[in-house]
Amino acid sequence: MKKYILLSIAFTFLLIISCKKENSNQIENVTIETEVTESDPLPSWNEGATKSAIMDFVSDVSNSESQNFIPIADRIATFDNDGNLWSEQPAYFQLFFAIERVKALASEHPEWQTTQPFKSVLEDDMKTLASFGEHGLLELVMASHSGMTTEEFEQIVTDWLATAKHPRFDKPYNELVYQPMLELLDYLRANDFKTFIVSGGGIEFMRPWVNEVYGIPTDQVVGSSIATEFDYNNGNPVIRRLPKLDFIDDKEGKPIGINKYIGKKPVFASGNSDGDLQMLQYTDSNSYPSFQLYLHHTDSVREWAYDRDSHIGKLDKGLDEANEKGWTIIDMKNDWKVIYPFQLN
Amino acid sequence: MKKYILLSIAFTFLLIISCKKENSNQIENVTIETEVTESDPLPSWNEGATKSAIMDFVSDVSNSESQNFIPIADRIATFDNDGNLWSEQPAYFQLFFAIERVKALASEHPEWQTTQPFKSVLEDDMKTLASFGEHGLLELVMASHSGMTTEEFEQIVTDWLATAKHPRFDKPYNELVYQPMLELLDYLRANDFKTFIVSGGGIEFMRPWVNEVYGIPTDQVVGSSIATEFDYNNGNPVIRRLPKLDFIDDKEGKPIGINKYIGKKPVFASGNSDGDLQMLQYTDSNSYPSFQLYLHHTDSVREWAYDRDSHIGKLDKGLDEANEKGWTIIDMKNDWKVIYPFQLN
Repeated sequence: MKKYILLSIAFTFLLIISCKKENSNQIENVTIETEVTESDPLPSWNEGATKSAIMDFVSDVSNSESQNFIPIADRIATFDNDGNLWSEQPAYFQLFFAIERVKALASEHPEWQTTQPFKSVLEDDMKTLASFGEHGLLELVMASHSGMTTEEFEQIVTDWLATAKHPRFDKPYNELVYQPMLELLDYLRANDFKTFIVSGGGIEFMRPWVNEVYGIPTDQVVGSSIATEFDYNNGNPVIRRLPKLDFIDDKEGKPIGINKYIGKKPVFASGNSDGDLQMLQYTDSNSYPSFQLYLHHTDSVREWAYDRDSHIGKLDKGLDEANEKGWTIIDMKNDWKVIYPFQLN
Repeated sequence: MKKYILLSIAFTFLLIISCKKENSNQIENVTIETEVTESDPLPSWNEGATKSAIMDFVSDVSNSESQNFIPIADRIATFDNDGNLWSEQPAYFQLFFAIERVKALASEHPEWQTTQPFKSVLEDDMKTLASFGEHGLLELVMASHSGMTTEEFEQIVTDWLATAKHPRFDKPYNELVYQPMLELLDYLRANDFKTFIVSGGGIEFMRPWVNEVYGIPTDQVVGSSIATEFDYNNGNPVIRRLPKLDFIDDKEGKPIGINKYIGKKPVFASGNSDGDLQMLQYTDSNSYPSFQLYLHHTDSVREWAYDRDSHIGKLDKGLDEANEKGWTIIDMKNDWKVIYPFQLN
């Protein structure tokens, strides 16, 4: 339920932004010059302690002469998605999807015109919608993410990504991915790490596009899920999505999901919120050397700046623990030359 | 619960064999000569329709000039384990493990001396044990597979495999794997298929050894599971195994598990029982060309012969459907030159 509590809070936030589009498109017109040299696998990262810490770790554990060497089979790297590989402001992108789905499905559900919380969505009455809280939001998600086959849902997500635009950047949502993190994923894979997503987001909301965008295949995605059933369907078998929670991959759920899906403790974990803290703690307990990475959203101009008090992607306990334990913290504003791929020239 | 119904029936069968060891070790003294040529990726398979069907399919879909070409990212191959990659007679190997675990744990559980079904196990009273049926068996499995951390359980499985011996062959259980299937796994991977196990057996019972034996990493194993919890454990986080079912990866559970863990429909599926039928049906519905493979246990001398009436690995509906749909059926006796790796010279 934790995911939905977060989503519910996100909803409140959505109220604030729902009636206006932020006017910050100028960023994409700036040509960012990044010096790409053959010897630099992380050209969008500024030189400094963060970049050095990452590269020192990877070089060390990949070196068979090092006492810190990690066998290839154990080089498991896990990445949170929302706010870590792509943006999560002004609300989780999956929430925009859920609202659009409810609107798209409305003609098949005439009862929604008079039934809450759907009525509020259809009337763009975000204030009333917010009054239904967590339970109302859960109803929205279940109604909009279930009832179809997995193949139909995949197509719906694909179609949405092809048409929906982010309210601030006016770009498809999956172009709001972080260029420096794409480079980090590539760099880890070049050093024989196996890269996984471990996200509180819906597993089948991510799978249709993450291979193309992140180079991560569907079977290396761990996420929240709803229950499904097998339907023989007169010889054309399908998997049908049910309006019932199966697994919430957030907080304690992340190490549980890692154990369930991956079956190995990671040696590299990357997140941006308190929802990732248990994953980083779990990784930190590896008997191999391990690396814990927190992305701190410090860039109010190029992206967003938020941490301890944010309703979305709250980073509070995690920030304290990272400082205590000497985990690596990315200072987005100072460590990254560029945020999104479309800002590269 | 279906898995446990099967296990329960297996228990009854176990009664029959529990007091005698079969005397068939002569097989391992026979030197099997297999002609290994550079050009033959399946040297332990006799020439014939089965081998040709497999190789024709793989060559065709791997050929970028073919109209049946399948992109590498979609070359998903799923294999059942019990009775398909290793033997499952005279009872599922995990059942031998559960019984041995109950005996090993008995000193920590003095109450088991007087509590059924544990009392029967400790007294080797298989007749009374069987009388508790499915519920009793479930109690055994839960008691013997939970309560410890995942790392402790991994060590227990590893230690068991290092010491326990199969009653007929007097070999460690994970040497009772099928040499021809090892070659098939290698052959598929050489053609850029990603190979997965999709088994009704316990996922964490398989993970400790399948990479070494089958070349399949832990994150490519789908199986039945029990629930777990995250325990921060004063800064030494662990995942603790709970006496509660999480997922049964059998029959309808197999396509559900494939969708949950892999997120893609396979193009190649291999099984040996009615428990694999839904996985083969699901694979058969792929829009790409696909291959369905049933292993028919027909070798009463070198392994075991069983199908429609067997309590373990029953192959009845699956055999009919395979014949109807023209799926490929391995005739173990005639298609395989050798059964186990230790029979190779």
